[in-house]
Amino acid sequence: MPNEAASFQSQISNPQSNLHYAIIVAGGSGTRMQAAVPKQFLLLNGLPVLIHTLQAFYNSRPQPNLILVLPQDYHTYWMHLSADHQFRLPYQLVNGGSTRYQSVKNALELVPADALVAVHDAVRPLISTDIIEEAYKQADLQGAVVVAVKSRDSIRQVKDGRTQSLLRDEIYLVQTPQTFRAALLKEAYHHPYHPGFTDDASVAEQAGHAIHVVEGSYQNFKITFPEDIAIAELLLK
Amino acid sequence: MPNEAASFQSQISNPQSNLHYAIIVAGGSGTRMQAAVPKQFLLLNGLPVLIHTLQAFYNSRPQPNLILVLPQDYHTYWMHLSADHQFRLPYQLVNGGSTRYQSVKNALELVPADALVAVHDAVRPLISTDIIEEAYKQADLQGAVVVAVKSRDSIRQVKDGRTQSLLRDEIYLVQTPQTFRAALLKEAYHHPYHPGFTDDASVAEQAGHAIHVVEGSYQNFKITFPEDIAIAELLLK
Repeated sequence: MPNEAASFQSQISNPQSNLHYAIIVAGGSGTRMQAAVPKQFLLLNGLPVLIHTLQAFYNSRPQPNLILVLPQDYHTYWMHLSADHQFRLPYQLVNGGSTRYQSVKNALELVPADALVAVHDAVRPLISTDIIEEAYKQADLQGAVVVAVKSRDSIRQVKDGRTQSLLRDEIYLVQTPQTFRAALLKEAYHHPYHPGFTDDASVAEQAGHAIHVVEGSYQNFKITFPEDIAIAELLLK
Repeated sequence: MPNEAASFQSQISNPQSNLHYAIIVAGGSGTRMQAAVPKQFLLLNGLPVLIHTLQAFYNSRPQPNLILVLPQDYHTYWMHLSADHQFRLPYQLVNGGSTRYQSVKNALELVPADALVAVHDAVRPLISTDIIEEAYKQADLQGAVVVAVKSRDSIRQVKDGRTQSLLRDEIYLVQTPQTFRAALLKEAYHHPYHPGFTDDASVAEQAGHAIHVVEGSYQNFKITFPEDIAIAELLLK
């Protein structure tokens, strides 16, 4: 016990890393939006969603190194789009894989083991710098954290064709960023792919790590449906 | 097996009830809205949220008998507000109890056992008539149904201080209406109050009934935060 307390204390006073990375994952082909253009490229207040997202991380105090994961088919499109919008932030571009798991795994190869790394959905442009900073801080202290909110609705789980209610207070809706000591996440991504890997926290959990929660915001929602762009514009006001 | 099929068939061709009720539950005191006025009275496109909600049920094909449950403290306020807005739909007014459970229990005393009854949050004004109609229809066939949507986010459950991921495809975010054969729900509400009763489906489930799901809509969200009024106005366009 005294050892644990001492170790915790030293983590607080001596953060393990000042090296920060953010992996921005831009996946989907946009079929749910009924739009020809994938969601991350749609204009939000005149600027592509993806640029809002990259800018949010760049504006956070740690000013992380940015890695953008994008399906190869969209690289040329993005090059033109970012030039049109005079996007000039430094970042590294990585090819997306056939799954989100493979995309993040590709990006992690560029992240040093002694860094802190945040993985974030490109289509969550309304992430606040405060939450980004808190997520890095808690990842440094605790190893593996997800930004999450409590559900406003009751929750039911389908089991064997019936539904059963779950205790709402025990349930978190998990957003991104999901933030980790990079060594931990890189090691976890060496485990083979598993269909239960819906996000990075589930990969880290499968490797035996406890996942902690940082309070998120309902505003940090995923642009999914056509009306979401108008909602995001309203929330930006 | 042949008996089950026959019984199902007869339920389809002979719906058990043509008597429809809707209990609209207006509870909260509005502290989370940072507004003096509880959420159900806030103006949405110039009309109180509660009037939108009552109107939506009245406009559905079964044109249910409306029961409004409102804390006694707000009865006078509501009388003035509804007069100001020339609200003229027929409805019965019932005193709210100290819990949602008690409020619904009070209202159920006015509902005949051979009716179908929908229980709906006053602060979900964007419910569509299509979903209301489908909920009544399925309640007639299946006894107990909730309107629900799949989560867009990953889900974690807090257990013994740790979090664990749940399979997203198994999880439903439960909205209202929650719709029942009235005899079933009235009987379930005779069971004593239990802290796990977060909604009507959990009361019916505790009494041993299977809860079925009717696909809802993300638009049918609960007005909770100040910005939700503006979002609802945008979705009404």
